[in-house]
Amino acid sequence: MLWYQESMPPRAAARAREPARARLDVDERRRQLVALGIELFSERAYDEVSIDELAQVAGISKGLLYHYFPTKRDFYVATVREAASQLLSRTATATPSQMEPLARLEAGLDVYIDYVSKHGKPYQALLRSGIGTDAEVGRIVDETREAFCARLTEGAPVDTTAPLVRIALRGWVGFVEATVIEWLDDPSAADAVSLRKMLVRVLLDVVAAAGG
Amino acid sequence: MLWYQESMPPRAAARAREPARARLDVDERRRQLVALGIELFSERAYDEVSIDELAQVAGISKGLLYHYFPTKRDFYVATVREAASQLLSRTATATPSQMEPLARLEAGLDVYIDYVSKHGKPYQALLRSGIGTDAEVGRIVDETREAFCARLTEGAPVDTTAPLVRIALRGWVGFVEATVIEWLDDPSAADAVSLRKMLVRVLLDVVAAAGG
Repeated sequence: MLWYQESMPPRAAARAREPARARLDVDERRRQLVALGIELFSERAYDEVSIDELAQVAGISKGLLYHYFPTKRDFYVATVREAASQLLSRTATATPSQMEPLARLEAGLDVYIDYVSKHGKPYQALLRSGIGTDAEVGRIVDETREAFCARLTEGAPVDTTAPLVRIALRGWVGFVEATVIEWLDDPSAADAVSLRKMLVRVLLDVVAAAGG
Repeated sequence: MLWYQESMPPRAAARAREPARARLDVDERRRQLVALGIELFSERAYDEVSIDELAQVAGISKGLLYHYFPTKRDFYVATVREAASQLLSRTATATPSQMEPLARLEAGLDVYIDYVSKHGKPYQALLRSGIGTDAEVGRIVDETREAFCARLTEGAPVDTTAPLVRIALRGWVGFVEATVIEWLDDPSAADAVSLRKMLVRVLLDVVAAAGG
């Protein structure tokens, strides 16, 4: 099951494929199109998905699709932004005042591992290198990493403003992403708890190695 | 200075921009086009570089460009493949028989850090998330990571076939990439030796945390 389907009732999913006779609210229509985009771009390369196909699958005319998204790239960027936002909102944990830093870190990683094990394909699509470089997409992915990292280390007894610590924390996010993507290809290599324990231990090591 | 210019004499670089009157050897022409592609795709988004512009900058007709590369994506994939191959060949170190594993790891990382500090832009372009997902590009980048990691850990007293160790090593490559990309944005945060020491220490920690 793809992630967006959790928040989209079956009737709405069906409507997204119907001709656009019904005058849908603009935001609602955009939301449906983005959900379809996440599905399509998770499965196939950017260049392989044509505007014609997008319009056909959405059940609307090319002209109407361009009305919502002036270019194919605009449409793609919107899907990346939504995927990043879903990742963050669905892996939210308790606030620092409610939980000790280490327990929060563990809980946050557990939710994250659970999330990516259920939504592996679009998550990999979000992170894996694609065709060409795109500053806006890069910025969205970087901001998501930054927010994820800031949330996990919030309240921790670490000076996250020290330059090398900041760099190392960003490196650790790279470690988490690469580890989890590799684990998705071979989940039998470790259970989720062992994986999380390794990620936590490496974070503590990384902070110590950076002098934090 | 961009990396390809090191291996391309000034006259060849000038020729690449001349009309294709001279009957260049096919491989040589392809090589020149790929060098130009690395330059263009390092600076701008895939969608922002048109086939018309590529042909114009290369000083050849669109038809001739399509003769060498049937699609724009083929051309892009060729530039990624060349960038990855240059990264590996220019960061080659001694073989295990010539050096102790730890010294090789350190030497390999020193060369790598030196390389990316000189060729930051195309290197970031190679690794940073781009527009859409592309299986072939993803495979090239993954194979490059794999080869880089295998070379650095060759001969080390670690069971790199244990599933969690393999995953953790791949994670460490993600750590190295993320750390170095972040460091490129703020080189004053650490000198190259401190950076390398941190990378080595984290590798030893990562292997220990994975039970290797």
